[in-house]
Amino acid sequence: MSVELQDQASVNYTPLQRMRHSAAHVMAEAVQEIFPDARFAIGPAIEDGFYYDFDLPRALTPEDLPDIEQRMSRIVAGKYPFLRDRWQREKALEYFRNKGQQYKVEIIENLPDEEVGIYQQSQFLDLCRGPHVEHTGQIGPFKLMRVAGAYWRGDERRPMLQRIYGTAWFSQEELDQYLWRLEEAMKRDHRKLGRELKLFVMSEDLPAGVPMFLPRGEMLRHLMEGYVREAQERYGYQHVWTSHLGKVRLYKTSKHWYTYRENMFPVMKGEQEMSEDDAFMLKPMNCPHHILLYKAQMHSYRELPIRYAEFATLYRYEKAGTLTGLARVRSLTQDDAHVFMRPDQIQEEFNRAVNLTLEAFQTYGLADYSVRLSLRDPQKREEYVGNDEVWATAEAALRGAVEDKGIQYEIGIGEAAFYGPKVDFMVRDVLGREWQCSTIQLDFVQPENFALEYVGEDGQPHRPVMIHRAVTGSTERFMAMLIEHFGGAFPAWLSPVQAMVIPIADRHHEYANSVLETLKAAGIRAEIDVRGERMNAKIREAQLQKIPYMLVIGDKEAASEAVSVRLRTNVDLKSMPLAQFMERVASIVKTKSMEL
Amino acid sequence: MSVELQDQASVNYTPLQRMRHSAAHVMAEAVQEIFPDARFAIGPAIEDGFYYDFDLPRALTPEDLPDIEQRMSRIVAGKYPFLRDRWQREKALEYFRNKGQQYKVEIIENLPDEEVGIYQQSQFLDLCRGPHVEHTGQIGPFKLMRVAGAYWRGDERRPMLQRIYGTAWFSQEELDQYLWRLEEAMKRDHRKLGRELKLFVMSEDLPAGVPMFLPRGEMLRHLMEGYVREAQERYGYQHVWTSHLGKVRLYKTSKHWYTYRENMFPVMKGEQEMSEDDAFMLKPMNCPHHILLYKAQMHSYRELPIRYAEFATLYRYEKAGTLTGLARVRSLTQDDAHVFMRPDQIQEEFNRAVNLTLEAFQTYGLADYSVRLSLRDPQKREEYVGNDEVWATAEAALRGAVEDKGIQYEIGIGEAAFYGPKVDFMVRDVLGREWQCSTIQLDFVQPENFALEYVGEDGQPHRPVMIHRAVTGSTERFMAMLIEHFGGAFPAWLSPVQAMVIPIADRHHEYANSVLETLKAAGIRAEIDVRGERMNAKIREAQLQKIPYMLVIGDKEAASEAVSVRLRTNVDLKSMPLAQFMERVASIVKTKSMEL
Repeated sequence: MSVELQDQASVNYTPLQRMRHSAAHVMAEAVQEIFPDARFAIGPAIEDGFYYDFDLPRALTPEDLPDIEQRMSRIVAGKYPFLRDRWQREKALEYFRNKGQQYKVEIIENLPDEEVGIYQQSQFLDLCRGPHVEHTGQIGPFKLMRVAGAYWRGDERRPMLQRIYGTAWFSQEELDQYLWRLEEAMKRDHRKLGRELKLFVMSEDLPAGVPMFLPRGEMLRHLMEGYVREAQERYGYQHVWTSHLGKVRLYKTSKHWYTYRENMFPVMKGEQEMSEDDAFMLKPMNCPHHILLYKAQMHSYRELPIRYAEFATLYRYEKAGTLTGLARVRSLTQDDAHVFMRPDQIQEEFNRAVNLTLEAFQTYGLADYSVRLSLRDPQKREEYVGNDEVWATAEAALRGAVEDKGIQYEIGIGEAAFYGPKVDFMVRDVLGREWQCSTIQLDFVQPENFALEYVGEDGQPHRPVMIHRAVTGSTERFMAMLIEHFGGAFPAWLSPVQAMVIPIADRHHEYANSVLETLKAAGIRAEIDVRGERMNAKIREAQLQKIPYMLVIGDKEAASEAVSVRLRTNVDLKSMPLAQFMERVASIVKTKSMEL
Repeated sequence: MSVELQDQASVNYTPLQRMRHSAAHVMAEAVQEIFPDARFAIGPAIEDGFYYDFDLPRALTPEDLPDIEQRMSRIVAGKYPFLRDRWQREKALEYFRNKGQQYKVEIIENLPDEEVGIYQQSQFLDLCRGPHVEHTGQIGPFKLMRVAGAYWRGDERRPMLQRIYGTAWFSQEELDQYLWRLEEAMKRDHRKLGRELKLFVMSEDLPAGVPMFLPRGEMLRHLMEGYVREAQERYGYQHVWTSHLGKVRLYKTSKHWYTYRENMFPVMKGEQEMSEDDAFMLKPMNCPHHILLYKAQMHSYRELPIRYAEFATLYRYEKAGTLTGLARVRSLTQDDAHVFMRPDQIQEEFNRAVNLTLEAFQTYGLADYSVRLSLRDPQKREEYVGNDEVWATAEAALRGAVEDKGIQYEIGIGEAAFYGPKVDFMVRDVLGREWQCSTIQLDFVQPENFALEYVGEDGQPHRPVMIHRAVTGSTERFMAMLIEHFGGAFPAWLSPVQAMVIPIADRHHEYANSVLETLKAAGIRAEIDVRGERMNAKIREAQLQKIPYMLVIGDKEAASEAVSVRLRTNVDLKSMPLAQFMERVASIVKTKSMEL
């Protein structure tokens, strides 16, 4: 996600980035004070802050950071101007060579320019294109975050340097807000919550990036998929099932074999498969399979659009190092669909897909999202498949649908795939982080690859157009986002356990168990805590598990068919008739409300 | 399924088999009449009939069968006695050698005996152990079924012979009944109905034995799994999700690598996997995966039993030649569960599994089933793992549970696996054919392989016992059985499409569409037929699709919020208020009734 800006590249820094870049120079000066022999590599602004890479005589520890911060504060307070200069290449080379600054020398040697930029503030002079703030006093509230190792030029055969990360903001409030967001993100980390809430586990005995879901995690998946399935049925999609395997020849026809193979799992070839074409692969995409279903029958123009949806687990052979919890996995379950349609149905089908996506966002309480339209570069028509008219219709349809909804959108000219334009939905979670979720993609090419047809009103064969679309993207990544967005405190309809029955003493077990059975029979996902713990400990445990409702059962409740309802938010609804509680939950679940 | 009895083996023929074996000799005599140079191989009784393999100067066609049947009838009418004799080996060899009967010569050469059996009726003399009926008149009503090729001794390097299959029964009624069953089985063949009802298709682009489910077939799967899921939740099972891949080392620990590998798909080893142990395989079983989930957390004796259930698609590398529609596939979705429990919980957990299975049979309207108990051979205790006490408890538990239910059962002493006793449920469909469905299996060994533990009341680690069980077995095979059992006419709750709305004329489309939407909103799976066909053609089509309810919409219905209800059984319920129809369906679906 982070865009790293190279120090020596031609850069268009925003004011905030410029200030952060200046903070990096101030940090370098502070390090130079402590280690006069320090060698300096690069120090760019990055998303949310800056860093600088150093070659130092000893390893830094987190304990060094306060010292460096203090020295930085003094330099900031000194309001030293950033002095800009241009040096002849040879002069700069000589200067840095004399100082033993081998990394700067190497940078200059690789520059084509005759002159290089030099900036100096206080006691620190650096090779730098800038720009910088006017003086060090313009550097806002900052904080050094951590030390990490980083290879020079990112090359593991080059020296390992020490990188200090820092952040800086225009105001203390923004810094505080940022630090809070960081802390909150750590608390909400779905890998941590996934363990604590008993949602999923990884195992050394499974491939990396293939999670296993414990009962509560499986229930969450089941509820998520159940909602999307129900919604898809309402929107006219039909569900299909196409297994997890295809023959190599299938992916040759679809061209995945040629264009996507590095992301596919290794080929399986057993004694019974005579040729490479007959060997098997795990499917990385559903499209070729849904196309086989389409081709299995004749279709008339009257039948279209045909919308095949499937919750299929796809396997993609990602590099082990890139895998992150559920956010990036090798076994991803897409809520995928493919629409086969006539060209005149593009607008309506696209609207339908957008409407479904927006309904899903609303259902999950995700109000902050934006859209990116990837269109064709009209200057390079020859790079795209499909005629001008269809592209024009398609792009207008995509744009029209998004504009009709009043959704904030960006346009990426030239970002369309060669086979069709697309729309991606980005959701911002409660901490403001973007997650790529839905995608709607037109495709003029797979229908060609597979020679798809329908019989038109004229009795002649015609080629359909396809839409590939996913409502929430992959169940796994969307779950990662939901876990972090809600901090594990899912809305009641989505909570794997909705109610924890907590009898106060042994004599309440019988009634508590009858409450449990009544709840279960009404379809409320309830458990009971009959451990010999004190009530407060049980409530605390249920709160940690983010269970929406705690039903405390004491003498009064047992005597009156009641439950004492405590919310996980600590609100105490006090005693109420069991039937009243059940009505409350039923109504909240039915409307998929965010309230408890 | 067919048990082929070798002509020359020591055989214990039932009276029916003996008669069929005699019919084979009569058939051979008829063939000898037509082809005096015919060479005879073997002619045993088999399930439902008999065959004889011949080496003939020309290929037989179906048109030859009536002639052979006529000649057989004449021989039967002649009431020729079956004359038994014993010949010295050398005499028999010389006799058959002179006759050019090379196959008989080879059989004798391979016999260790000094004397061989000879039977003769009318003009036909054969090498045969017998026994036979007294005379040809005792052969009951028969019919020749078909001609097929068969290698001598089943060896493809030996000559290809011609095999004529026939059937014979004690009474004409039994023969008619058998032929009706055959015809009915053909009509109900799930591969044929699967195509006609648009349930599933196969593709050359997928591995053999990996079906794809069209929308109606997927809905059927979904309803089947939905029912079992709901029932499993009621019976205290928790659902989990463990993906489709494991590392080789997992299957080494579970021993599947050593004992089951020939049934597993080929290993996937990519650039990122350093060793064989780290390579991947498609999982053929869920047990190792559920065990990993169990091991991911500590367990106390109080938490047990833990019951993990999963609708997981397993991949088994069956020989392509053995695959049959959905009945035998390579991608099978088991409604699988594993129970981890203390030894003292065996009885209760076993009862629970049996109860769930019986509930499922009842729900699906399968009243005719039996059970096979596979127990240990007490004479060979050393061949089994687990101590005597646990085996005694376990076997008593299995037997007790089955007896308590009054289920007809057989016992197979010595048929238990070395790791535990088991129970298999066999369902007989409406044509009397047996399908192996549920299985409940105790396992003392996997807990050892994975060193599973729970903390007992004594604070010490103890080893749990496991149950492997499947309610309906594989979704695919159970679906094959249901398709054939119901002839595609599923009960209303299980019908992918429950109601077809049939407007009589164009002017009824508006009301018909509103009926469709009302039904869908109420969760009734309805479609509409707006083709320009006549009403009777639409009704006929819906009946062929086995849709339970046809709702005909004419002027009268449109004027009165009514529908005219026709059942697929041709019963005409006449016009009724739409609300009344919906109540009827809701009640039938809720109770999963077999009525419409």
